[in-house]
Amino acid sequence: MVELEGAYYVTWCDDFYGPALAIAKTTDFKKFVKINHPFLPFNRNGVLFPRKIEGKYVMLSRPSDSGHTAFGDIFLSRSPDLHYWGDCAHVMERGWEWWNLTKIGAGCNPIETSEGWLLLFHGVTNTCNGFVYSFAGALLDLKDPSKVLFRSTDYFLTPEESYEVSGFVPNVCFPTSALVDQATGRMAIYYGAADTYTALCFSKVDILVDYIKKHSR
Amino acid sequence: MVELEGAYYVTWCDDFYGPALAIAKTTDFKKFVKINHPFLPFNRNGVLFPRKIEGKYVMLSRPSDSGHTAFGDIFLSRSPDLHYWGDCAHVMERGWEWWNLTKIGAGCNPIETSEGWLLLFHGVTNTCNGFVYSFAGALLDLKDPSKVLFRSTDYFLTPEESYEVSGFVPNVCFPTSALVDQATGRMAIYYGAADTYTALCFSKVDILVDYIKKHSR
Amino acid sequence: MVELEGAYYVTWCDDFYGPALAIAKTTDFKKFVKINHPFLPFNRNGVLFPRKIEGKYVMLSRPSDSGHTAFGDIFLSRSPDLHYWGDCAHVMERGWEWWNLTKIGAGCNPIETSEGWLLLFHGVTNTCNGFVYSFAGALLDLKDPSKVLFRSTDYFLTPEESYEVSGFVPNVCFPTSALVDQATGRMAIYYGAADTYTALCFSKVDILVDYIKKHSR
Amino acid sequence: MVELEGAYYVTWCDDFYGPALAIAKTTDFKKFVKINHPFLPFNRNGVLFPRKIEGKYVMLSRPSDSGHTAFGDIFLSRSPDLHYWGDCAHVMERGWEWWNLTKIGAGCNPIETSEGWLLLFHGVTNTCNGFVYSFAGALLDLKDPSKVLFRSTDYFLTPEESYEVSGFVPNVCFPTSALVDQATGRMAIYYGAADTYTALCFSKVDILVDYIKKHSR
Amino acid sequence: MVELEGAYYVTWCDDFYGPALAIAKTTDFKKFVKINHPFLPFNRNGVLFPRKIEGKYVMLSRPSDSGHTAFGDIFLSRSPDLHYWGDCAHVMERGWEWWNLTKIGAGCNPIETSEGWLLLFHGVTNTCNGFVYSFAGALLDLKDPSKVLFRSTDYFLTPEESYEVSGFVPNVCFPTSALVDQATGRMAIYYGAADTYTALCFSKVDILVDYIKKHSR
Amino acid sequence: MVELEGAYYVTWCDDFYGPALAIAKTTDFKKFVKINHPFLPFNRNGVLFPRKIEGKYVMLSRPSDSGHTAFGDIFLSRSPDLHYWGDCAHVMERGWEWWNLTKIGAGCNPIETSEGWLLLFHGVTNTCNGFVYSFAGALLDLKDPSKVLFRSTDYFLTPEESYEVSGFVPNVCFPTSALVDQATGRMAIYYGAADTYTALCFSKVDILVDYIKKHSR
Repeated sequence: MVELEGAYYVTWCDDFYGPALAIAKTTDFKKFVKINHPFLPFNRNGVLFPRKIEGKYVMLSRPSDSGHTAFGDIFLSRSPDLHYWGDCAHVMERGWEWWNLTKIGAGCNPIETSEGWLLLFHGVTNTCNGFVYSFAGALLDLKDPSKVLFRSTDYFLTPEESYEVSGFVPNVCFPTSALVDQATGRMAIYYGAADTYTALCFSKVDILVDYIKKHSR
Repeated sequence: MVELEGAYYVTWCDDFYGPALAIAKTTDFKKFVKINHPFLPFNRNGVLFPRKIEGKYVMLSRPSDSGHTAFGDIFLSRSPDLHYWGDCAHVMERGWEWWNLTKIGAGCNPIETSEGWLLLFHGVTNTCNGFVYSFAGALLDLKDPSKVLFRSTDYFLTPEESYEVSGFVPNVCFPTSALVDQATGRMAIYYGAADTYTALCFSKVDILVDYIKKHSR
Repeated sequence: MVELEGAYYVTWCDDFYGPALAIAKTTDFKKFVKINHPFLPFNRNGVLFPRKIEGKYVMLSRPSDSGHTAFGDIFLSRSPDLHYWGDCAHVMERGWEWWNLTKIGAGCNPIETSEGWLLLFHGVTNTCNGFVYSFAGALLDLKDPSKVLFRSTDYFLTPEESYEVSGFVPNVCFPTSALVDQATGRMAIYYGAADTYTALCFSKVDILVDYIKKHSR
Repeated sequence: MVELEGAYYVTWCDDFYGPALAIAKTTDFKKFVKINHPFLPFNRNGVLFPRKIEGKYVMLSRPSDSGHTAFGDIFLSRSPDLHYWGDCAHVMERGWEWWNLTKIGAGCNPIETSEGWLLLFHGVTNTCNGFVYSFAGALLDLKDPSKVLFRSTDYFLTPEESYEVSGFVPNVCFPTSALVDQATGRMAIYYGAADTYTALCFSKVDILVDYIKKHSR
Repeated sequence: MVELEGAYYVTWCDDFYGPALAIAKTTDFKKFVKINHPFLPFNRNGVLFPRKIEGKYVMLSRPSDSGHTAFGDIFLSRSPDLHYWGDCAHVMERGWEWWNLTKIGAGCNPIETSEGWLLLFHGVTNTCNGFVYSFAGALLDLKDPSKVLFRSTDYFLTPEESYEVSGFVPNVCFPTSALVDQATGRMAIYYGAADTYTALCFSKVDILVDYIKKHSR
Repeated sequence: MVELEGAYYVTWCDDFYGPALAIAKTTDFKKFVKINHPFLPFNRNGVLFPRKIEGKYVMLSRPSDSGHTAFGDIFLSRSPDLHYWGDCAHVMERGWEWWNLTKIGAGCNPIETSEGWLLLFHGVTNTCNGFVYSFAGALLDLKDPSKVLFRSTDYFLTPEESYEVSGFVPNVCFPTSALVDQATGRMAIYYGAADTYTALCFSKVDILVDYIKKHSR
């Protein structure tokens, strides 16, 4: 969910002849108006930017297949009106480090910083006993967020606590939303744990930005 | 390829981090200008309508996965400018008859008739020795081509001749283009045979339209 | 295991050129006599009814493949003599709710109630990290148990406790036997937890019957 | 199809929540009465013996999965009444020779000879470009046809002619029916070629019986 | 790691166009010299014997494929110089007992006893929710260690503790090194638990030898 | 087969707990002596060089898996005695051109020329209806044949004739042996066609060497 031009927009993975992204708008959290599917199936992990960039709405997503996809990169699309989408670009491919070898996907809505858009993204590796979801961060160019300025080669969090390691889907830390206190830069990051719990961890924007820049390829 | 507002547009399956549609424009068949990818990957079998409908450009396509996809329906998208795409709709699902159980896809650009848009589409079945591609036809609503008026339950052509049954990819009849003589309604349908030969067969518009209407579900 | 005409019958999944059901009879729990395989392979989850119905023995089972089958519905067969089987019918297909999308199978032997046969059955969903087994209940017609009167759309139990979520096969609650106190209707339901523990939960027949009727499609 | 006690019985692979055998009876080839499915799915290649054996009807079949099964042996079932089936036994497993490594299945209805029941069966091997179907023969015990007396290690026919090698499903010789002239022992064997043609080949019963005995393991 | 002729040799699974074994030598644990890959890919679980046997260096390994291999036996190779390898032999195949049905692999370096080489090896079974790694032991002939004298049909350890059952890869007990106190025969066995922890268990050489001999096929 | 130091050596793919290479020696084509397997399984397409290089025997091979492998590069191994093998190196990876995207493998024994060792190799592509085998050539360094000097980006031959396109395994041209007339450089290349026929084509050494050099990346 993201606040954008005075309204709130929710994005999720809908079922439209397979997994496909959907957007809904609300101003009062009572009435939600569903906007048409922005892209054709099959697609997951859709994340809107919190403001127009160069006059266009911008959205990240991960094209996938219709099952438990074993591959996936992050792409970007632009729109003049949240209805028609185009200008798609490839943003980030799966990584070379063990924790994001299989696929990656955007997590929280990007956070604007003086150093670029701070994007938290999850990375997946494929063990003989299933997928393991960790997450890390990247900095995208403020004017053209399809350009990656820095990308952390290390994860921020990987399943280690019992509520992350055991549950409906074991070994999942999946970031979904980050709240920032503008005055202090303090962040509260919500993430799904083992597809069973909603977990919460804390950091500060400048700490994460510094970490990404120091641990970039 | 289709003539549209005085220019010629070519659509094909490009490699953009996986199979994705692409469009190019030419007026003289010497210089081709490539327009950005209309949709995110993974997608194949993109076909443009030969004129704007209700003020929008319209394109059919088949979302797929990144391999030899074993499923697939035909979708429709609209655009105000050939650049931004939206309004996507589901047009036709794979069929109940043996020859199109696995997947279907648009073939030639739709042909305008008084009875609706005549769409030639391929259908695929999956034998223990591989896919078999046949083709048939459907009639789509003139004003809203996401509505199927009639759809043939029988194929028009299935691999039987030696040049269709043997070759680089055995058992393929894949329609790609249809020329219509407006005065007489005579049609020349080009189709790929066994991914090895370009084959040609003939019919008339009114014969196909009648056949589709009589053999519709 | 079920008591039937004064003897006890055990049913299990045997290895007969692949998984196949087997039946054994005992009267003293010291000597067990194995009866031939009732059905051809591949089959699992065989459950006998505790009395003849309309003069025939009746058994539920789930046809499967020879591996970790990713599909499966419940079928019914009848026999005049526990030896020759026929009259097979389709009883219940996998469900539309997330917890039983992949396959279902009979659990405990059906319990006769005034409202129909109370059948506890397991349902399986397929996550990217493996199968999750939950269970729920249905009511089958007393005279023709191939007819489903009511079927719960909600599960009764899904893995949440640590001994259900972690173990040899994580995330399994698999009901196998239910004891009923006829005077009070109190039930003790034994179920396998994570393929590691034998767990036990309690309810009452009328509570489950009411729940199924209220939460049926 | 087989003549049995003055009537004709047709067996085929029906669609009953997956592939399952079915039987129909006719006396005049105008009216066909369908008898219930003899076995649970998933099963193919059902073949009836032309007379009761030791007072029971006998049928061969091949348990399979719901797709293009990559394994399969021949089983036998008995019935007192063509309605209830039991006494199932394993008859023949897939072979050690290249042409029947993947699976085997009964072909024509068994032919009674002084040396045993002559069974023509197909054998399948799995190349990197699909399945290849050949066929050979075996002799089963007259009183207990679940006992294999002799089984040919060599095929009788393997796809070599153009109408066997190319077609809807390339490389298939699939025997379906054998007519025998009792006076002379001459046989006409009908077989499907490439799932496209009905082909016909000739032999004599004593030639095949001798060949099987001389080329048995 | 093993001490051999006054130096220490480390063996591991390297990435050489896929998983392949590698050997490195050190005398001071500061400088490690890598010796070329002993075998072609794809191979894992390489274990050196602690002395030459019949004048040759000897190494166990498990040929595999390039993914999460679902099969695997233990082979043996010999070398005159740790550089050129040959004389390969098949030592042990996957077992008939549930815990090592899928694949096996050498664990700790073999320990010389009067009864033969004591080899600790892991065994893997494949559940619908992933692989489970247990371990057991075998005794190999002192002069020709490709001959198995005794092999335990029971496992020594299977995942049961929380740190074995939950973690990055659930349900793994993977033995990697065993220290023996020559005076008393006491053993300390290091094993990986859930690919997350290094665990330690204790036993005595004569206890394990006796157990293997008593529980051999 | 190759002549080497006055004897003839045959290499083939043996069954040694899976596909593995084997070597046999003969001097009179009556008695063949089998030498032990040079490498562990799984391996195919073994080809010996016709003389020692830098004092060592040299062999090319392609590590694979135990099925219809969908990947594969060419590796090289050296031996002092045809018994112990080591010094393995990676020679050529699968190509970027459509016809050798899936895997490659050595074909005929290398032919010594003034420009390097002329190696004919097959390349495989994967269509939705199976593999297609073509072949091309490369030049390897005379002193260190693990170094590729030139490699043709175009195939020499791809299945087009009816005996290459139809047969037991459709669409295969698989080179196995090349005879050279030293005086004139004329070559006779034997290749398997559709795994059904032995086919023969002709060229000259200098023509192929020139072609490879002109069409190298």
